[in-house]
Amino acid sequence: MTDPRSLPPFASDNYAPVHPEVLAAVAAANDGYAVAYGDDPWTARLDARVREEFGAGALAFPVLNGTGANVVSLTALSPRWGGVVVSDVAHVNTDENGAPERVGSLKLLACRSTDGRITPDDVARWAGQRDDVHRAHPAVLSLTQSTELGTVYPLEELRALTHVAHDLGMAVHVDGSRLANAAASLGCSLRALTTDAGVDVVSLGAAKNGGMLGEAVLVLGPDDAPDVASARAREAASAAIPFLRKATMQLASKTRFVSAQLLALLGEPGDAGPLWHRNAAQANAMAARLRDGLKDLAPAVRVTRPTEANAVFATMPRAAADRLRAVARFYDWADGEAPDRVEVRLMCAWDTSPETVDAFVAAAADALS
Amino acid sequence: MTDPRSLPPFASDNYAPVHPEVLAAVAAANDGYAVAYGDDPWTARLDARVREEFGAGALAFPVLNGTGANVVSLTALSPRWGGVVVSDVAHVNTDENGAPERVGSLKLLACRSTDGRITPDDVARWAGQRDDVHRAHPAVLSLTQSTELGTVYPLEELRALTHVAHDLGMAVHVDGSRLANAAASLGCSLRALTTDAGVDVVSLGAAKNGGMLGEAVLVLGPDDAPDVASARAREAASAAIPFLRKATMQLASKTRFVSAQLLALLGEPGDAGPLWHRNAAQANAMAARLRDGLKDLAPAVRVTRPTEANAVFATMPRAAADRLRAVARFYDWADGEAPDRVEVRLMCAWDTSPETVDAFVAAAADALS
Amino acid sequence: MTDPRSLPPFASDNYAPVHPEVLAAVAAANDGYAVAYGDDPWTARLDARVREEFGAGALAFPVLNGTGANVVSLTALSPRWGGVVVSDVAHVNTDENGAPERVGSLKLLACRSTDGRITPDDVARWAGQRDDVHRAHPAVLSLTQSTELGTVYPLEELRALTHVAHDLGMAVHVDGSRLANAAASLGCSLRALTTDAGVDVVSLGAAKNGGMLGEAVLVLGPDDAPDVASARAREAASAAIPFLRKATMQLASKTRFVSAQLLALLGEPGDAGPLWHRNAAQANAMAARLRDGLKDLAPAVRVTRPTEANAVFATMPRAAADRLRAVARFYDWADGEAPDRVEVRLMCAWDTSPETVDAFVAAAADALS
Amino acid sequence: MTDPRSLPPFASDNYAPVHPEVLAAVAAANDGYAVAYGDDPWTARLDARVREEFGAGALAFPVLNGTGANVVSLTALSPRWGGVVVSDVAHVNTDENGAPERVGSLKLLACRSTDGRITPDDVARWAGQRDDVHRAHPAVLSLTQSTELGTVYPLEELRALTHVAHDLGMAVHVDGSRLANAAASLGCSLRALTTDAGVDVVSLGAAKNGGMLGEAVLVLGPDDAPDVASARAREAASAAIPFLRKATMQLASKTRFVSAQLLALLGEPGDAGPLWHRNAAQANAMAARLRDGLKDLAPAVRVTRPTEANAVFATMPRAAADRLRAVARFYDWADGEAPDRVEVRLMCAWDTSPETVDAFVAAAADALS
Repeated sequence: MTDPRSLPPFASDNYAPVHPEVLAAVAAANDGYAVAYGDDPWTARLDARVREEFGAGALAFPVLNGTGANVVSLTALSPRWGGVVVSDVAHVNTDENGAPERVGSLKLLACRSTDGRITPDDVARWAGQRDDVHRAHPAVLSLTQSTELGTVYPLEELRALTHVAHDLGMAVHVDGSRLANAAASLGCSLRALTTDAGVDVVSLGAAKNGGMLGEAVLVLGPDDAPDVASARAREAASAAIPFLRKATMQLASKTRFVSAQLLALLGEPGDAGPLWHRNAAQANAMAARLRDGLKDLAPAVRVTRPTEANAVFATMPRAAADRLRAVARFYDWADGEAPDRVEVRLMCAWDTSPETVDAFVAAAADALS
Repeated sequence: MTDPRSLPPFASDNYAPVHPEVLAAVAAANDGYAVAYGDDPWTARLDARVREEFGAGALAFPVLNGTGANVVSLTALSPRWGGVVVSDVAHVNTDENGAPERVGSLKLLACRSTDGRITPDDVARWAGQRDDVHRAHPAVLSLTQSTELGTVYPLEELRALTHVAHDLGMAVHVDGSRLANAAASLGCSLRALTTDAGVDVVSLGAAKNGGMLGEAVLVLGPDDAPDVASARAREAASAAIPFLRKATMQLASKTRFVSAQLLALLGEPGDAGPLWHRNAAQANAMAARLRDGLKDLAPAVRVTRPTEANAVFATMPRAAADRLRAVARFYDWADGEAPDRVEVRLMCAWDTSPETVDAFVAAAADALS
Repeated sequence: MTDPRSLPPFASDNYAPVHPEVLAAVAAANDGYAVAYGDDPWTARLDARVREEFGAGALAFPVLNGTGANVVSLTALSPRWGGVVVSDVAHVNTDENGAPERVGSLKLLACRSTDGRITPDDVARWAGQRDDVHRAHPAVLSLTQSTELGTVYPLEELRALTHVAHDLGMAVHVDGSRLANAAASLGCSLRALTTDAGVDVVSLGAAKNGGMLGEAVLVLGPDDAPDVASARAREAASAAIPFLRKATMQLASKTRFVSAQLLALLGEPGDAGPLWHRNAAQANAMAARLRDGLKDLAPAVRVTRPTEANAVFATMPRAAADRLRAVARFYDWADGEAPDRVEVRLMCAWDTSPETVDAFVAAAADALS
Repeated sequence: MTDPRSLPPFASDNYAPVHPEVLAAVAAANDGYAVAYGDDPWTARLDARVREEFGAGALAFPVLNGTGANVVSLTALSPRWGGVVVSDVAHVNTDENGAPERVGSLKLLACRSTDGRITPDDVARWAGQRDDVHRAHPAVLSLTQSTELGTVYPLEELRALTHVAHDLGMAVHVDGSRLANAAASLGCSLRALTTDAGVDVVSLGAAKNGGMLGEAVLVLGPDDAPDVASARAREAASAAIPFLRKATMQLASKTRFVSAQLLALLGEPGDAGPLWHRNAAQANAMAARLRDGLKDLAPAVRVTRPTEANAVFATMPRAAADRLRAVARFYDWADGEAPDRVEVRLMCAWDTSPETVDAFVAAAADALS
């Protein structure tokens, strides 16, 4: 913990600690014995909470990490010869060391994205290979919400995407490792972003939202499905996941400690400010503050992507970035507009404070001078 | 938590709560931000502790569950065409829904065991297919210590097994989900059971030993290897595991919370009664007490396996078992000596108390009458 | 071809040449261009022949080898978490280097067999783990007919096996790499052994029956299925196989040359002596002659298994076996009754002649003296 | 064979028959028994021929089809966490239904190509993720020669590519399903294109070059490797392939019939016009003739790619293409320059005649009028 840097990092929302309410929930779940592998009261309560939040018939399957949530979801929705339509910058495509291919035997069908988002036309382009035995059958559309580039699919865009996918016989998965940030950004419920938008299966993130260890796969209610094929895909996924989760090493023996975290984040029904929202809103607000601060440093600094969730992307001189790196950790994302410039990614988390943001902007100004 | 049964379960050591010292360590690790994916101070400290405990050059790789620990270990030790020699009752063979086959593309080569243990002759029998392209190359011997039947390989037997395996060009893995119970049973150090016995890679269990979520893969020091091939296998495994762990979905973003649990269990150097030992010794002692109690109920009850760790196996009339089940949960293991008898498995955990054991034995006596 | 041994081998029915009628059919198929990947007239004709021979609705899928036929079949019948109940000596379990596990992500559930055969009780024993997420779901029963030990399941036994499997929700696969030998042995049609016995999917062998390169997967007609689940499994397999065959590298671009071989073996409708039967009957007859000859060498030679197809198993002194090996190639199978005895496997093929058999028996007599 | 179309197809070089010399070689190999699985005289002779043709230490491994050759090659060169750098239009990426991912557990790292070719800069771009556990390790560069778009990497370009790959620690594979066409196009030996260009492993095509069933994987001699890492990769691949070939269902029992085809194509040492060259040169010449004929139909027809091997790509009005389709089969490749235009792919094979080409061009002229 003896980081020589004077400021907390903007490297990843995974660097943040666990929110105290989550930790308290974990401690509270340590109440005597409980049946292992998810047949415990906390997991039963989670199932009930998920139905309250996401609609009747929705099911929650706690898993161990985000890659696990994605691979279990995609494998549950795809035949052995299936392909998954994704954005080229999707985490499943770039940052999971091929787990979907290696564990799930899936083929990813990547689309060039703009600011992390793909379009209905991108999805439709794969339709031609549906019945071609030589090609991966496009079985699933997987969207990231909020995206890896800090943008958010608006509800209308999301509905257009799920619509075209279902029309073409694909199921729809959302990698929601930052679903809370998207909902807070759009000012909508988690349900509006998923159930009501025609999504079939969700990787519901916890770690980046103040959690500790574990996430969940949600399968939305068949009765909420937009068509019969979607309803059947949900039923099949619900039947498959208990087995797939075990076989892909995503089932915790003491599942209650994962479920307790998710319950803490979801809060109680009617809670006006559930923890998932408070944490996400804070991270989003800090990203907006950071973006505004960096915009004042134009033209030396240029914000490169819409700041719609908890990430800010900006280009700056490489030399300045390197000086700034001595003050706070962050990652380079891409080359900049010129050889002497670099695009950096700055992530805010639930614990990022206005003071930290302001100090970072001031340090950036120093680094540029 | 409203179990109608009057006694805590003897169903699984996974039903037990987390030991308070482990929970306190988790809470203490929630100290500000930390670099994700294991580049944090707790994980660095774990690496140091593992070297103190298991010898110079040993490495610890925190993972998410026991099946994950086993599959990462075995895959790191085996070529793509490898086979793993195991006991027929090994957890990897029976209780992981084929994860070694499905995730690791491994072939398991099962040996008939006696009370969960296999012999050097069992291992040697696979040697003939080493160079046969039609058969899985026997690349790894995987032993469970303590075994699924509550027995323990004595040190001499263990050394004979690792010796024959290395002689035949196999690496040696120990599924140590209950390694602590074996060490407590033998009155030896964890090192004596692993490093000093010629073991190459260990799945070091935590959940059944008072932990919460997560385990570790240990690769023992190449300098401690019994021969050059073993040393090379360890070096190759250490190089492979960081990649395999990620690709098989066993890398936690907030790894510090797994490492903190393992540190709590390992205790500090020189600690006369580290937590792993206290927890295992208690579970073992309760199993011995339970066995003694059940032996007094002979011949209606017959203890069927040597009780060397924290499990007791016994046959009894099916009707009595069913009456007893209303008092405390436990699992049937196999058919009994006669159609009206059943073999049951009774697991003790770190939190099993003498009072619980005695009450259970009394209930068994009642059920028999 | 300069084998110093004076007699043709009894090592494997794979050592035999291609039957001239098969070769002629291959040459005849080289008639100008044809659409690739199976959309050619020979493959269309094969489909028609298969329906004539195996019943309406049966489908043939040419593949490239026997392991491929088995893995395509099993994968088409099993969910990703499935297990396949097999005999411990099944080719898929012992001689395919784990292809079902590695390519198909399947778990094999091996039963101890007697003379290569398993029983309905062996199958039923796996039923308990059908709904247990920790265990491979027993999805398929795979039988070898004739077996690896030269025995044949009688029709009644076969029907009992398919009955229990279907009752327990399993589909039934037959590894028919020597299906012709079984049919010739039982004096029945291929249909009697498959369609009429309740089998769902068959690996139809060609190479061991006088073929060159390639085999076929047959899916029997849903209307012939014994129950609804079986009919659905067949429909699902038929839909899956075109994709699975390609994805598992079993689709030949010039499929017509595989189909032509199978057509030559199946012969024309009404053919009293189709090539498959002539070839198999000859191999079986030679095995019976060899068995009879060896029985005359008792007690030095002991025939160890019922000789029901084209293989003879016998024990003899190791020294005699080694002398005999200089005369004709064959493989050792197992240890004999005593350390100085060995069990050998002697395979007859479509081209084995009475003279060769008699010369071999004479050589055996010499080797013993 | 009752195609209503008046001309032979330009759809695929896989539609062509087997060259009579190949068929004769297959018939000649049907000479009595031979040891199965490649331990036969034809395969031994193939090994010798490959050393003569490709250099000392080169090894040939007959396999069953082109996808199999590619997957065996790539898997032999990659760790379990490896990635394969490929062109976006590579057959392994688009037309093998994910076999590299599903069977080989590989991650493909696709580069945007120009006319099917990628550049050293494209390869270098993946270097940054070599040590990143979150990303697939770029282990292999796989080039297609000639490419899927009918172009050929010149020797200098090829050497630059293998150089950058080796510099970055990657091994180099060539998908040579049309290697003969590339060599004929460049007027060089097969060795110049592979061994002398620094290639490590080759999928040596036969089917598109006049073969029937089967291809080969070649591993070039370690002594010819450009650096130590490359030499080691070749040694490791040679040791792995016998096992991988079996486990991935690419080992023919009667391998002699595959080897005989390859021997026929390679011809005898010193043969001025070996069959591989005659067949490829004819196909290439016909493509050039076709291109020239189509160029005369400009601007209604526009040749869109350099015609360097046996494929011609051209755009034309959709209506004309549809009329032409009634005369001879061919496939559409992509959209054309305008909504009413389409890009078609026209493949020539070893049996394409000048008369067929001229008739097709005449038919195209008709279709346009």
